[in-house]
Amino acid sequence: MKFTFSNKISSLQPSAIREILKATSNPEIIPLAAGNPAPDAFPVDEVKAITKEILDTNPIEALQYGVSEGYQPLRDTIADWLKQRENIGADFDSVLITSGATQVIDLVTKVLCNEGDTVVCEEPSFIGSLNCFRSYGCKLKGIPVEDDGMDVNALEDVLKTTENIKFIYTIPNFQNPSGTTMSLEKRQKLYAVAKKYGVVILEDNPYGELRVSGKRVPSIKSMDTDGIVVYAGSFSKILSPGLRVAYCCAHKDLVAKMTVGKQASDVHTPCLNQMIVYNWFKKYDVDAHITKIQNIYRKKLTLMCDCIDEYLGDFVEYVKPEGGLFIWCKLPDDVGMLDFVQKALEKKVAVVPGKAFLMDDTQSTQYIRLNFSTPTDDGIVKGIKALGEVAESYR
Amino acid sequence: MKFTFSNKISSLQPSAIREILKATSNPEIIPLAAGNPAPDAFPVDEVKAITKEILDTNPIEALQYGVSEGYQPLRDTIADWLKQRENIGADFDSVLITSGATQVIDLVTKVLCNEGDTVVCEEPSFIGSLNCFRSYGCKLKGIPVEDDGMDVNALEDVLKTTENIKFIYTIPNFQNPSGTTMSLEKRQKLYAVAKKYGVVILEDNPYGELRVSGKRVPSIKSMDTDGIVVYAGSFSKILSPGLRVAYCCAHKDLVAKMTVGKQASDVHTPCLNQMIVYNWFKKYDVDAHITKIQNIYRKKLTLMCDCIDEYLGDFVEYVKPEGGLFIWCKLPDDVGMLDFVQKALEKKVAVVPGKAFLMDDTQSTQYIRLNFSTPTDDGIVKGIKALGEVAESYR
Repeated sequence: MKFTFSNKISSLQPSAIREILKATSNPEIIPLAAGNPAPDAFPVDEVKAITKEILDTNPIEALQYGVSEGYQPLRDTIADWLKQRENIGADFDSVLITSGATQVIDLVTKVLCNEGDTVVCEEPSFIGSLNCFRSYGCKLKGIPVEDDGMDVNALEDVLKTTENIKFIYTIPNFQNPSGTTMSLEKRQKLYAVAKKYGVVILEDNPYGELRVSGKRVPSIKSMDTDGIVVYAGSFSKILSPGLRVAYCCAHKDLVAKMTVGKQASDVHTPCLNQMIVYNWFKKYDVDAHITKIQNIYRKKLTLMCDCIDEYLGDFVEYVKPEGGLFIWCKLPDDVGMLDFVQKALEKKVAVVPGKAFLMDDTQSTQYIRLNFSTPTDDGIVKGIKALGEVAESYR
Repeated sequence: MKFTFSNKISSLQPSAIREILKATSNPEIIPLAAGNPAPDAFPVDEVKAITKEILDTNPIEALQYGVSEGYQPLRDTIADWLKQRENIGADFDSVLITSGATQVIDLVTKVLCNEGDTVVCEEPSFIGSLNCFRSYGCKLKGIPVEDDGMDVNALEDVLKTTENIKFIYTIPNFQNPSGTTMSLEKRQKLYAVAKKYGVVILEDNPYGELRVSGKRVPSIKSMDTDGIVVYAGSFSKILSPGLRVAYCCAHKDLVAKMTVGKQASDVHTPCLNQMIVYNWFKKYDVDAHITKIQNIYRKKLTLMCDCIDEYLGDFVEYVKPEGGLFIWCKLPDDVGMLDFVQKALEKKVAVVPGKAFLMDDTQSTQYIRLNFSTPTDDGIVKGIKALGEVAESYR
């Protein structure tokens, strides 16, 4: 049978990044394309001890159906943690546990957008989120990212002139892929502009705890006196992505509708996984673990930057990010970006072509995205050295 | 801020069943409204041993990102099991691991339906699936369920006269809520009719292994020489619902699109949970465990039917199902169904009003749904006895 797919899904093509990532399943390929946490960043012994205890003392709750809103002790723990760490959480807010932060993106889009509505994004932005918006038939409107975050003046122009904008999607800390962090001033201005035009802000903060230099900037949600910000957080980068436990903090009216949507999507996030996260907070020093991870990534980021400076030199332009997982590198104007990526792959190094992060990927860009968390230190050195050899071929 | 929700979600109201289920979180209430597996049906010791071994020997794979298609050894295991147990799986088929079978329903709807398209369902049918279809802005068209399953003649009339029907949703075994099983003859006719009109069949089989009497009927997917059937299966009822691991077997073109949709929904189903299911198949006798569960449910079903006969007598009409989790009971015509449900709740017994399972829940029905898997044996006796007292008040 020849299937006729829905309009929203027909337009969603397997992305360049997925094709590249397929290549990285080959263990001979050095993976600078992925976004996986470093294996030594996982608290394996803690998860083992916690899981044993849960299954020894409370197996039925771990294996039985749970409620769509999430495991209540975990919801309470997250609410407390957000309050203490980010000063997030007003009386009108509520926490919803989700299956990865991608599900926050999915549910916000589902409850706010009709087909044809517009989502405003930073350009470039995370392809997973862009594809989620596309999968609901949304139009994407990109706002350029400057060194201190989204161009908020350009944003206001768009809000002024575009109909049916339902929300603004931003990754304010160590943005994927650009690595930039939005300044406090821009966060305040973004909030004011969104409020003025009555548009929701979806603040996606998967990398916030992965700061390795510079000073923490208050989250946009911490300024949210009007209930217009949905804050998406995740345990994927600080505990484990494979457990698929994330959350959002948002106005309770929005969370109520998202819960109805979640009920119809996957009913609830696995109980065992939620209980593992809850017990991790209860029994271990999460802040100390985050410091440990920051040390791992500081070392890896510095190593990759040193290698880029040594082997690629002035062939690429980049700004060293203050955290996150990615370095966004600009190739010379006379180098074909996709040609460079292809040649890198021939040398067994996978990087992501920057096109993947554009609203309209038929546009061109000179950027590639490099990841420093997935490869071993040896892989970082060998990988960047190989990119240096590719660069040589253009000189 | 006053939110404006999407059209598809605005129309989705918190359902009667959810309100009733909230009451069941009160431990004083006897839960005949839920659909939870009996706690003694969980293979707790096996899950403990498996989980320990996974985290001892392969923790990084369990905690790291996985691929959207699912854990390959589990996909292979399910494909083999479906072939051996159900004669399911053609060369053009592929298996996708999902986060509960609800996600199969979600992804099929996402990839096949535009807003305003029609999904044909048995009437009554599972409210979770109906709400999923509604959450994509689909219209629902109900086909009456007879004692041997969907009225296939009525189905053909609808296919003949209704535009933009994208798929037919059926629960052929121990249908939720009616408990009926579709006859082989009707399955063959349903397949022929769907083929004739070029419409996909979504065969949802969460309860198939919970047969406690009668003879197994071949699945519709086992007849699928044309690749038009999506088969949804789940480990929720035979292993654990809290782990949220389910799957579909469908034509690979459809699975490819569903995988793109899953990538944008929750990226992948948790690795640890998939590895638990895989190792359960590898190390334990799954068929023996299913036999054990069948024995548990046979006893509970028989107990509930005996109690109904003793305490409710000819006040209700029902057909004893050959398996599943539910008994569908018709109240006398002169009894207000919602009034009866309310009076039962006052006696601390929760049952589900049949309205919840209608396409249009402003219609009326005399049915209530009773579940025999969740309550203890004592709860079954006390619960039905209390319903008998409510019935007395109408005599």
